[in-house]
Amino acid sequence: MRQKNPPRQFQDRLDQVRRDMREKSIQALLIAHPADYFYLTGFTGEDSAILVTPRSVVVVTDGRFEGAAQKEVGWTSVRFRKGELTPELIAAVQSSRCTRVAIQPTKMSVATREALRKGLKGVRLVDAPPTLSQMRECKNASELKKIDIAIRVAESAYRAMLKTIRIGQTELELAARLEYEMKRRGSTEPAFGSIVAIDANAALPHAVPGQGRVKKGSLILFDWGATLDGYRSDLTRTVFVGSIPTKFKAIYEAVLTSQKKAIAAICAGVRMCDVDAVARQHITDCGFGDRFTHGLGHGLGLDVHESPSLSWRSDQKLRAGMVVTVEPGIYLPGLGGVRIEDDVRVTSKGCQVMSHLSKSLATSVIDVAR
Amino acid sequence: MRQKNPPRQFQDRLDQVRRDMREKSIQALLIAHPADYFYLTGFTGEDSAILVTPRSVVVVTDGRFEGAAQKEVGWTSVRFRKGELTPELIAAVQSSRCTRVAIQPTKMSVATREALRKGLKGVRLVDAPPTLSQMRECKNASELKKIDIAIRVAESAYRAMLKTIRIGQTELELAARLEYEMKRRGSTEPAFGSIVAIDANAALPHAVPGQGRVKKGSLILFDWGATLDGYRSDLTRTVFVGSIPTKFKAIYEAVLTSQKKAIAAICAGVRMCDVDAVARQHITDCGFGDRFTHGLGHGLGLDVHESPSLSWRSDQKLRAGMVVTVEPGIYLPGLGGVRIEDDVRVTSKGCQVMSHLSKSLATSVIDVAR
Repeated sequence: MRQKNPPRQFQDRLDQVRRDMREKSIQALLIAHPADYFYLTGFTGEDSAILVTPRSVVVVTDGRFEGAAQKEVGWTSVRFRKGELTPELIAAVQSSRCTRVAIQPTKMSVATREALRKGLKGVRLVDAPPTLSQMRECKNASELKKIDIAIRVAESAYRAMLKTIRIGQTELELAARLEYEMKRRGSTEPAFGSIVAIDANAALPHAVPGQGRVKKGSLILFDWGATLDGYRSDLTRTVFVGSIPTKFKAIYEAVLTSQKKAIAAICAGVRMCDVDAVARQHITDCGFGDRFTHGLGHGLGLDVHESPSLSWRSDQKLRAGMVVTVEPGIYLPGLGGVRIEDDVRVTSKGCQVMSHLSKSLATSVIDVAR
Repeated sequence: MRQKNPPRQFQDRLDQVRRDMREKSIQALLIAHPADYFYLTGFTGEDSAILVTPRSVVVVTDGRFEGAAQKEVGWTSVRFRKGELTPELIAAVQSSRCTRVAIQPTKMSVATREALRKGLKGVRLVDAPPTLSQMRECKNASELKKIDIAIRVAESAYRAMLKTIRIGQTELELAARLEYEMKRRGSTEPAFGSIVAIDANAALPHAVPGQGRVKKGSLILFDWGATLDGYRSDLTRTVFVGSIPTKFKAIYEAVLTSQKKAIAAICAGVRMCDVDAVARQHITDCGFGDRFTHGLGHGLGLDVHESPSLSWRSDQKLRAGMVVTVEPGIYLPGLGGVRIEDDVRVTSKGCQVMSHLSKSLATSVIDVAR
C-alpha cells in the first residue's frame, strides 16, 4: 500500500521505530496509547489506535473523529469502526498480512490482548520493546518550545490567581481560579488535578482541594500545570499568608536549598539516583529525611508523568534533551508541607531551568486582602 | 486475620462480591481500578490496589496517601509500598496464602498480569467475572443523591456562565468560565474534558474548545459535567446567539423530539437497542439518519462512561436504578451540530429525568451583549 509522505517530524520518528522493528523482526506495531500515537502521527482522536508496518500507517478510529482524521492524518489509511475497537484492529492486522505483531504490554489490557489472540489465528503477538518511551524521553526543539509555552501559561495564570486571593477563600475557589486563568490563556486541560492545599492539607503530597480556607498565617501549597498542543507543565510553589512561622522558615530553606543542589547536580551522564541522593542528603542533614516521602521528580512531556523517573530506584542516566521535574518536599502530618518544583531541561553541560517563578524565602510570604 | 467492620454500604457490596467469589471458587480478588476500589472501600488514593479475600480487605498504596488511608480505610489492612506497586501486590497475595486469585482483565495491563504470574508461583490467576461492573450499573439512594448534586452543580454553573457570554469570546474562555463556576461550587474536577464548540466546530461530536469566537447568529454546543464525591454528571445544551437559522430550527426540533421519544421509551425491562432505535428512527424520519453518528447514551456514575451502553449494539435490558445519559445529535460537517443530553434514572415504571435545564426551542435562543 503506497501512502502519502508524512510531515517530516513524524517521518523521522516512524523511521526510528521501523529501524527498531526490523532489528527485532517485528512486522507490525500496534499502538493504542493516545500520547504515543499522537507522537508518531499527530492524531488527536480518543479511543483509537494505529498500526505501523514497514510501509504504511493505519489509523483505526470512529465517526466522532472523522474531522480530526481528515485534518491531521490524511497521509495515513484511516479505518472507521462501526462497532468496538478491537474487531476493527483485528481486521486491520489481517489486511496488513503481517504475522508477527508487537503490542505495548504496559499499555494494553489483558482482555484486549486476549481478544486479539483469539481473532488473529496464525499471527504471533509479541511484546514491543520500550523504544517509544525511550524516544519520548528526549525532546526536540519543537517539543521544548511547546513545553516552554505550557510553562509560560502556568506561570502567568499563577501570577493572575495570586492577585485574587482573599482571606476566607476555599482551596477549591483558588484551584477554580487557577484553572480558569490557565484555560483562558489556551490550556486545553489542567496537566493533572491541580493541588491547592492549605495548612494541614498541605501535609498530604497528593492533597485534594476542598473546603479548607485561607487564614492569616496560612501556608498554601500550589501544584499545577497547563496543557498546550498536548505538552504539559508541572510546577509547585508554597506560600505563607502574611508571615512565616519559624519552624516552616527552616523547612522552606531546607527544601529550597535541596532543590537548588539537585538542579546543580543535573547533567547528561549523571544517574537519576545520584541526583535524588543530592536532594535527599541535604534534607536528611537538616533533620527531615523521613519526611521527604516521595521521589525527586519525573519526566514531563505529552504525559505529565513519563519516563524517566528521577528517583532513588533508578540507576538510568540523564540524557541531553530530557525534561524532568525537580520537586523535593517536607511534610509534617497535621501541620503542613513545603514543596518547590521546577521543570528542567538536561543539557550536555548541565541543565537549564525552564520555569522562572520566583521562589526565594522573601517572595514566599504574600499579602492577602480581607 | 480479623479486621474491623467496614461501614454498612461497603459491607453490603463486599458481601455481594464475596458471594460471587464463592460461586466461582475465587479465593481472592485483585482490584486496581480507582473507581472500583473506591466503590468497595471508599479509598480515594491513586496508583493503588486492593485485595479482597473472604475475611479481609488489604489496601496496597504508598506514602503519599497515608493520610487518606487513615481517614478512609482504617477498617482494612494497609500496606505501604516503598517501590513499585506490583511487587507489593505480590507480597500481599503471598501473605494471604490464596492460590486462586482473580484479576480484572479489562482493567489490568498485560505487563502487570505477566509480572504477577512470574512472581506468584503456585498461584492460579483467573479472570474475574464482570460482577463489579454490573453491580455499579444500578445506583442506590446514596449514589443517586450524589449524582443529583453533581447535576445541580453543573446546572447552576451553566446558568452562571451563560450570563457572562459576550460577542468575541473564544470557546476556551467559555469553557474556562464553565469549569471555574463548577469548581467553586465544589466540583473536584470536570467530569470529562468540557466541550464548548462554536459553529463548524460543533459538527465534531468530540470537539476540542479552541480559538473559535462567539458571533451574532453563532451556534454554541456545550457538553459538560461536574464531579462531586466521585460521582459525575454529563449534560449537553445547544444554543443560538440572537436568532436561529431555519435549517437549524428543523434540526433542533428533530433532536429534541428524538430525545423526548427516547426518554418516554425508557423503562426497566426494555432493551438498550430498542431505546436507541426510537431516537434513531425519529431522526431518520426527519431525513438526518446518517448524521446521527454515535450511540444514544451510556451509564453514568463514578466513571463518566460506564456500563451499560445505551446503543444499537447492546441487547442488554434496562434495570431499575440505572442512570444513563440520553444524547441524540445531528451533525452537519462544516456547518455545526445540535446535541441535547440529559441524565435519566431508570425505574420499574419508566424513568425520572434528573436534570432540569430548559431545552425548549424558545430557550435555545440567547441574548448576548457585545
